[in-house]
Amino acid sequence: MCELLAMSANVPTDICFSFSGLMQRGGNTGPHKDGWGITFYEGKGCRSFKDPKPSAHSPIADLVTKYPMKSETVVCHIRQANSGDVCLENTHPFIRPMWGKNWTYAHNGQLKDFQTQCPIKLHLPIGTTDSEHAFCWILDQLYYEFGAQQPSTVILFKFIATLAKHIDALGVANIIISDGECLFAYCSNNLHWITRRAPFGKASLIDAEMAVDFCKETTDKDIVTVIATKPLTDDEIWHRMSAGHWHLFRLGESVVCCDQDIL
Amino acid sequence: MCELLAMSANVPTDICFSFSGLMQRGGNTGPHKDGWGITFYEGKGCRSFKDPKPSAHSPIADLVTKYPMKSETVVCHIRQANSGDVCLENTHPFIRPMWGKNWTYAHNGQLKDFQTQCPIKLHLPIGTTDSEHAFCWILDQLYYEFGAQQPSTVILFKFIATLAKHIDALGVANIIISDGECLFAYCSNNLHWITRRAPFGKASLIDAEMAVDFCKETTDKDIVTVIATKPLTDDEIWHRMSAGHWHLFRLGESVVCCDQDIL
Repeated sequence: MCELLAMSANVPTDICFSFSGLMQRGGNTGPHKDGWGITFYEGKGCRSFKDPKPSAHSPIADLVTKYPMKSETVVCHIRQANSGDVCLENTHPFIRPMWGKNWTYAHNGQLKDFQTQCPIKLHLPIGTTDSEHAFCWILDQLYYEFGAQQPSTVILFKFIATLAKHIDALGVANIIISDGECLFAYCSNNLHWITRRAPFGKASLIDAEMAVDFCKETTDKDIVTVIATKPLTDDEIWHRMSAGHWHLFRLGESVVCCDQDIL
Repeated sequence: MCELLAMSANVPTDICFSFSGLMQRGGNTGPHKDGWGITFYEGKGCRSFKDPKPSAHSPIADLVTKYPMKSETVVCHIRQANSGDVCLENTHPFIRPMWGKNWTYAHNGQLKDFQTQCPIKLHLPIGTTDSEHAFCWILDQLYYEFGAQQPSTVILFKFIATLAKHIDALGVANIIISDGECLFAYCSNNLHWITRRAPFGKASLIDAEMAVDFCKETTDKDIVTVIATKPLTDDEIWHRMSAGHWHLFRLGESVVCCDQDIL
């Protein structure tokens, strides 16, 4: 399996602290040693750092922990391969353009019969993972449903939720999807999230000897949500998402979820 | 204007030496300080490093000079903005999927009337540069001409050459396009290339106090072509491309050019 990490914030925020914990799970405190990737959005643009090597021993991962890139939306994945070889084209997150935006996709889990259950035509995979295949299928379905014009946020992500459920039914699919502005998180069996806001406190990583006092890094107006497969800190309260549930985060807050609409 | 750098090799080769020279032109020995990007292919996969900040002062560029990533195809660009703001989404190279491959595009020059002369429909730009618009137009034309199936290499790149000429007629367009296997270089007014093969010699950078003895870095079978806006070394003989000419490189060698077919 793999591990997911994502962030949504209302101000450009770096993810050095959280990533410092997660990267240890790629070959050190965890077995997810088959590559890793992280995508940072800045406005409509985004940049990814990827390596098919273990994150715990990657000079590129080391740079990501030390060079604070400020972003409002981040998607990250460390991989333990079960579908597709260990190589660059099979490394998440996957990014594809649609409706004049960069769409990012990361998946934790494993799918069966995805080639027959999720036939694709318009968006062809480059690698050989079940994950990229499912992402291409989602993009095909979005085009069939909405054509050349992106619909409203709520309509779009409620439809994406039905697609995520379809994929989840083929096995296990914890899914993160983002267009840089919105961050959609679907829980199959393992996804946690925490929203940090004033009054900020301290936090200590589980996977590394590292603590931070968010008071010193933030202003009173900052709102930052972090989503992860497993909690990254041991002195904060994380929400555990239920199976089949999803949240849409925007500017650091949950704005729509499967139970309610509060956009 | 901007500067281009690209590499085609028959064995995975790092580009640390050439990039060490080029990056100095982004804010130090040259004025191309409005961002930079480099794309490394590994098989069908690729990874890019991008920064809207000057390459000469970028910690990410510093990593690229020190961490030898081996690749058979590399495309790099340092930007001096003239169309579109300085921001991540306007930073080259641009990458888009087509026919199950990653296509990479970098452009040096400036275009007029590109929105009316290169109308686009299927592939929508994310940023605001003339360059990304032209790339989207090329992809639209490829789809109209060949549909869902990639044609043979020679037919494809001869058609791309006609598209490059169309774009070049709108201003200045030195263009690099690659699918990871083939590297196409079109010269509008400024493009040089060199093919290094046994017996290898020494070379000294123009933009940094750095020299290399390729004998110590290579085997007798290695063939490596480097393409750049301006020569990067002052003790080797670079070919200057003529206006309107193009080359298709594969595995380090020019396999087709505008004058002849030798594939």
